[in-house]
Amino acid sequence: MSLPEHVSIREVLLRDGLQLETPIALADKLKLLEAVAATGVREVEATAFVSPTKMPALADAAELAAQLHHYPDIEFSALVASPNGAKRALAAGFTSLEYVVSAADGHSRANVGISSAEAIARIQEIVTLARGADATVEVIVACSWDCPFDGPTAQKRVLDIMQRARDWGADRYALADTIGTATPRRVANLIAAVRSIIGDAPLGAHFHNTRGSGLASAYAAVQSGVTRLDSSIGGLGGCPFAPGATGNIATEDLAYLLRDSDVNVDINLDAAIAAAQIVQEVVGHEVPSALLRAGDRLLN
Amino acid sequence: MSLPEHVSIREVLLRDGLQLETPIALADKLKLLEAVAATGVREVEATAFVSPTKMPALADAAELAAQLHHYPDIEFSALVASPNGAKRALAAGFTSLEYVVSAADGHSRANVGISSAEAIARIQEIVTLARGADATVEVIVACSWDCPFDGPTAQKRVLDIMQRARDWGADRYALADTIGTATPRRVANLIAAVRSIIGDAPLGAHFHNTRGSGLASAYAAVQSGVTRLDSSIGGLGGCPFAPGATGNIATEDLAYLLRDSDVNVDINLDAAIAAAQIVQEVVGHEVPSALLRAGDRLLN
Repeated sequence: MSLPEHVSIREVLLRDGLQLETPIALADKLKLLEAVAATGVREVEATAFVSPTKMPALADAAELAAQLHHYPDIEFSALVASPNGAKRALAAGFTSLEYVVSAADGHSRANVGISSAEAIARIQEIVTLARGADATVEVIVACSWDCPFDGPTAQKRVLDIMQRARDWGADRYALADTIGTATPRRVANLIAAVRSIIGDAPLGAHFHNTRGSGLASAYAAVQSGVTRLDSSIGGLGGCPFAPGATGNIATEDLAYLLRDSDVNVDINLDAAIAAAQIVQEVVGHEVPSALLRAGDRLLN
Repeated sequence: MSLPEHVSIREVLLRDGLQLETPIALADKLKLLEAVAATGVREVEATAFVSPTKMPALADAAELAAQLHHYPDIEFSALVASPNGAKRALAAGFTSLEYVVSAADGHSRANVGISSAEAIARIQEIVTLARGADATVEVIVACSWDCPFDGPTAQKRVLDIMQRARDWGADRYALADTIGTATPRRVANLIAAVRSIIGDAPLGAHFHNTRGSGLASAYAAVQSGVTRLDSSIGGLGGCPFAPGATGNIATEDLAYLLRDSDVNVDINLDAAIAAAQIVQEVVGHEVPSALLRAGDRLLN
């Protein structure tokens, strides 16, 4: 079985990784960003423009945005959940937006207070706003496999979102395993179905390791031709509106697996492990990273 | 890609799972065995006949063996590391032996005090002893991918052991990721090479989750046609003579992944999660199981 030569890892520590944490100071975020940049990563999800009341850990989105020009080699993106959030992100200078649409009504209502259909209907407005600012939009389907409230997600709900996103001109697409329930076979099946809608447009995948299968699912996605994966240094992360959600797959664990599969990533493994140590110090508790504890199998 | 319809999970909690732990009473082991049997598992690695000084947690091997007749539906096996251990295991009534041979000299010397070549030379005597008692022998290759002392294991060393084991009449074979360094691509590569030696003889795989890739490696083995996997309830386990080794893949996490891949196993998932809770209570510390914390995605 042939694997892609290269996989782009997008670092989500500063958004997904921090959103469940007790808010940290901007200076600490910049310290994390410095460690992240040192890994060599080319894409970083910097923050989200959402309600500061609901997501206090990301309330400093605009202030953080003002610091990103120090890293010209990194493409920074911001997550948005509404047209208003998109306006704020664009005003802050982001040219890469992620719009999250939940495929399940239960999660959609808990997350953004509207149904999945209402959230889908906003895609067009957000794409139009982005186009006006020469920005791109990635449509991320939350709860692509399961919803904490509604149970298993019917594949058709995911495909309908992809179809609408395609019709309205989304630039990229992603499947999110919001509560960490995906497993490799289900991943491969959904990706094959999605490809029938979006063709060979850029498709990413976002896994949480809640049930231990995160890396297995990520590898299955790569086997299925996906070349864009989200991960978080240290394995930090989780959605506050998805009960039971836990950390993202850890960047260093993913980079280790892909290196040993002869898939190139832009991540220096030693720098990623060093960054996980910094994350642990900044957040003040143990992080789920395996490589931070076990180290690389190869010694320098 | 087609997967096998069925995978046999061998429960290694009572041997690999306990060998790093502070020794527990026989009565506690029987409590664990009761919980293991309730999962429906058909194969259980019960203990090891090794030096009680080096492995005090398994010093009660013969006493435990005397209790196994209460579970006539389970095939119990015992690990041995020498002809003397094989004699003791056979005398205790075991008809299924596992002989561990390390593919690396560093680990072999730390584990059994002899070189890999010397350990290989014992295969013939152990098979002969087993034949005399109508017992079978599975040859398990420790450090199939990496050794904590010698670094990466040359594939040829593993294939040589398989060749010798085949020549001498081993009944089954297994690849062990003793220090949890394997990743899916390397797993698939080694299995393909091993198949060229042993044909379609029974081949198992044994993974530790030390670097987070345990389930990804197990799934890769299944994709490569392996239908026998070791795992430990709760994710307990590790080799005291392999620095940095940590828990086996957790039986409940593996059973979850395979169920959702439409691969039949003989494990009832709810019973496996309940058993992990009992393991945690008996050993008195948190265990690495993901399912114990997160629960099944499907609610009854």
